[in-house]
Amino acid sequence: MDVEILGLIAGALTAIASMPQLIKVLKTKNVEDISWLMLVILITGLSLWVWYGFEQNELPIILSNSFAVLVNLTLLISYFIHKNKN
Amino acid sequence: MDVEILGLIAGALTAIASMPQLIKVLKTKNVEDISWLMLVILITGLSLWVWYGFEQNELPIILSNSFAVLVNLTLLISYFIHKNKN
Repeated sequence: MDVEILGLIAGALTAIASMPQLIKVLKTKNVEDISWLMLVILITGLSLWVWYGFEQNELPIILSNSFAVLVNLTLLISYFIHKNKN
Repeated sequence: MDVEILGLIAGALTAIASMPQLIKVLKTKNVEDISWLMLVILITGLSLWVWYGFEQNELPIILSNSFAVLVNLTLLISYFIHKNKN
């Protein structure tokens, strides 16, 4: 398989992975079993991957991790909104 | 910053990100708010990143994603163990 395509598929999957979790949180408004520390470490790491992608000039890494940062930031914000409600 | 070091830090963070979630699940045995679909998509994507890392010969990508696959597989197994108990 072409390595660029492989990277794009891998990136698409890890980028959209948090979407079902975000949808679940938005629907149920329950976040008790979720670790906010996971989200903070993940967002920091993903942001560094975006930086790494720019340094290496690798589009799959830049695109997928930027999208994942957005999704997980939304998840973290939702977490604190619903955590305070309980 | 040296790009290899940047990649290793980014990789270390995204690799350990799921650890607090795993510890939380092992402690509380509550998995209700967690999306198993997230875990399945994530593990598939991470495995493809490992493959990508081998193709590009990039050690930070191989190491961090292999470790993340292990943690998230353990999380998925824990999910189904505790989901069935409830």
